[in-house]
Amino acid sequence: MRREKLIQFMNEQGIDAVAVNAGPSLTYLTGLHFHLMERPVVVVFTKDAAPTIILPELEKAKLTGLSYDVRCFTYGEDPASWGKVFANAFEKLNLDTAKIGVEPRQCRVLEYELLKNALPDAEFTDGSTIIAALRAVKSPDEIECMQKAVKIAEDALETTLPLVKIGVDEKEIATELFLQLMHHGSETSLPFSPIVAAGPNAANPHSTPTARKLQSGDLLIIDWGARYNGYASDLTRTFGIGELGDTEKEIHNLVHMANRAGRQAGGVGVPCEQVDRATRQVISAGGYGTYFTHRTGHGIGLECHEDPYIREGNSQKLEIGMAYTVEPGIYLPGKNGVRIEDDVVVTEQGARSLSTMSRELRILGV
Amino acid sequence: MRREKLIQFMNEQGIDAVAVNAGPSLTYLTGLHFHLMERPVVVVFTKDAAPTIILPELEKAKLTGLSYDVRCFTYGEDPASWGKVFANAFEKLNLDTAKIGVEPRQCRVLEYELLKNALPDAEFTDGSTIIAALRAVKSPDEIECMQKAVKIAEDALETTLPLVKIGVDEKEIATELFLQLMHHGSETSLPFSPIVAAGPNAANPHSTPTARKLQSGDLLIIDWGARYNGYASDLTRTFGIGELGDTEKEIHNLVHMANRAGRQAGGVGVPCEQVDRATRQVISAGGYGTYFTHRTGHGIGLECHEDPYIREGNSQKLEIGMAYTVEPGIYLPGKNGVRIEDDVVVTEQGARSLSTMSRELRILGV
Repeated sequence: MRREKLIQFMNEQGIDAVAVNAGPSLTYLTGLHFHLMERPVVVVFTKDAAPTIILPELEKAKLTGLSYDVRCFTYGEDPASWGKVFANAFEKLNLDTAKIGVEPRQCRVLEYELLKNALPDAEFTDGSTIIAALRAVKSPDEIECMQKAVKIAEDALETTLPLVKIGVDEKEIATELFLQLMHHGSETSLPFSPIVAAGPNAANPHSTPTARKLQSGDLLIIDWGARYNGYASDLTRTFGIGELGDTEKEIHNLVHMANRAGRQAGGVGVPCEQVDRATRQVISAGGYGTYFTHRTGHGIGLECHEDPYIREGNSQKLEIGMAYTVEPGIYLPGKNGVRIEDDVVVTEQGARSLSTMSRELRILGV
Repeated sequence: MRREKLIQFMNEQGIDAVAVNAGPSLTYLTGLHFHLMERPVVVVFTKDAAPTIILPELEKAKLTGLSYDVRCFTYGEDPASWGKVFANAFEKLNLDTAKIGVEPRQCRVLEYELLKNALPDAEFTDGSTIIAALRAVKSPDEIECMQKAVKIAEDALETTLPLVKIGVDEKEIATELFLQLMHHGSETSLPFSPIVAAGPNAANPHSTPTARKLQSGDLLIIDWGARYNGYASDLTRTFGIGELGDTEKEIHNLVHMANRAGRQAGGVGVPCEQVDRATRQVISAGGYGTYFTHRTGHGIGLECHEDPYIREGNSQKLEIGMAYTVEPGIYLPGKNGVRIEDDVVVTEQGARSLSTMSRELRILGV
C-alpha cells in the first residue's frame, strides 16, 4: 500500500526510481530495521520490479519471512568489493539514464557515491519531498502509536515531578525522567535526550542538562519525549521554582496563550506558515517577538523532526492525518526562558492535541 | 593539539581543508556537541584561518565560552536561505579551487550539496582516512574513559544475570540490562541497543531481542555496551542455558580459544588482518570456518565502530593507543550461535584487554 502510493507519487513527479538507505524511510517502506552503520544498506524502488535491496551478507537473515518479493544483493567485509555488488544490483533494472530520487538528509556521501558509480549516466535528484509527503500523512495505526508515545511521556514526567525542588540539579532530574520513561514503556532509543534547563540555561533552546542547582525564581523548561513502536512524542512544559518575578509570570502566560493559539490555528487546508503566524502574533503583541527565536514546530512521526515544518515561508497545506508540534517559546538571554510544546494531529474538526497535561504555570519546589 | 595534528595530516596528504558535519569527528575536533538534524552544522578546518563554523542561529549559544577562536556564520529557519550563508562563509577562505576532504560515512548529501554549491570549482575528496587516523590513536584520557565504559558494562551485566532463567524471554533480559547500564552510570545514549539472542536467534549475529523464552539447550549471546563521557564499550559473552549438547559445548570452547588467540595477536606494528587471521585460524582448524561469517572486530572510541577494522585485506599496522574489538563467532543457522568479544588497546607490551569478565562457559538458569 505504502509502496503503491510511492509509485503513484513517482509517476506524478517524473521520477523513475527512489533509493533509500538505512533509516526511518527504509523502515516505513519495507518494515525492515537497519542501523546507519559503516556498512551501507540501500533499497531501490522502481515502477515495475520488486524492490532491490543491497546489504551486508551478515544482515541477510533479516529478510527471512518477508511477506513480499525482493531482489537481494549482498556484499562481504571488504569495502573495495562493494562497488561491484552495486553495479550488479542495477544491471537489469534499466535505470542507466533514469531520474533517481534520494533523501539528502538521510543519504550519505558513502551511499551516494556507490549509487553514482553504479549509474554514472543517471540523474540523481532530491526525492525527499515524495517520501516526506507519504510519511507526513499518518494512518490511524500510526496515530495510535503516537498517542501511546505521548501518554508514556506524560506519565513519566508526572512521576518525576516530586523530585523537582530547590537545590536539585538539572542532570538529576534528567536522569530520573529518563528512567521513568523506560519504566513507563518507552523504547530505549528515545527520540532525543530530555532537555532540563532552568534559569539562564532555559534561555538556550537546545540546552544540555548541567549540574546547576534549581534556585527560587527559575523557570524550568523540561522538553522530553518517548518512543513507542518506532513513533516519537516530543513535549515541553515550563515550571516555576519558588518565587517568580513578574517578567517570568508574564512570559509564561504569553507562551501559554501562544501555544493555545497555535493549537487552534491548525486544520485541513491551513498553510503551515499560518500556524506559525498564530503563535508569533501573540508573542509579538505581548512585546517579546524578538525573543521567540525559532519556528513554531515540526512534523513528528518515525522521526522526531520531519515534514511538515511549521514556519514562515512554508505554504504547504495541512491535511488530515498530519502530525506536528506546536512549541512557541520566549528566551531572555542570561535570565530565563519558557517553551510549551504539544503534539497535534489534523482531523476534520481541526488540530487535536495528543497531549493533555496541564499547561498552566505550576510552582514547584517550595 | 588535535587540530594541529589534523593540519599536519592535511599537509602530508595534500588536502587544503577538511569539512566535518555534526557527529563524533566534529566533537573530537572542536569539543562541541551537535545532533545530526535537519539543520546542518558544518565546521571547516583550513591551514591558516581559525575554524569556520556554519550553524543554525538558535544553536549559537553553544559557542559561548569556547577557548579558541572560530569564524561563525549562522542561518535562519528557511532552508532556501542556507546556500547564501554557506557562500558567505567561504568567501574569504581562498578555497575556490582547493582540495577539500569530507567524511563519506558522516557527511550527508544535504551538507555535500551545500558545500559543492558554495565551492563549485573545488575538488571534494575522501578525507575520512585523515580524521580516522587521528581518532584511532587514543590518548591516556580517552583510554581511561573507555576503561570506565567497560567497567560500567561489566557491572551492569553481572547484576542482570540473576534474572537469566529458563522461561524468561530475551526482551525482559534486554530491558533489565538496559536499566542496569543506566544505574551503573552509562550515558543514556548507549553505543547500541543490547543484543540478547538465544537458540536459533543466536545464529543471527545482529538479532534483535524477541519474546522467545529461554529453553534448556540454548546458547545465549549477550552483546552490550555502555557509554562514558562520549566513549563506547562493546562486549559479548555467551552463556549456556540448562543442559547443552556436545556441539554447543564444542563451539563455545572454539570461540573462547579464538578470542584468546585474537587478543594475543595484537601489538605494535601488527597488521590488522593478522589479528583477523589469528581468530579465524582457530575456528577453521576446529572445522567451523564457514560459520564465522564476519570480520574479527572493529575500532572503538567515540563511535562504536570506527578505524581500525580488523579484517582480512586490511594491512594497516597497529599503533600504541589504538583500540578495537576482538569478537570471533560461530553461527549455526536455525540452531545456536556463540560470540565472545573484548575491547583491547595496543600498548608497548601487546594488546591489553580493557574487559576482564570471565569468558568461560557459564551455565545459567538451572
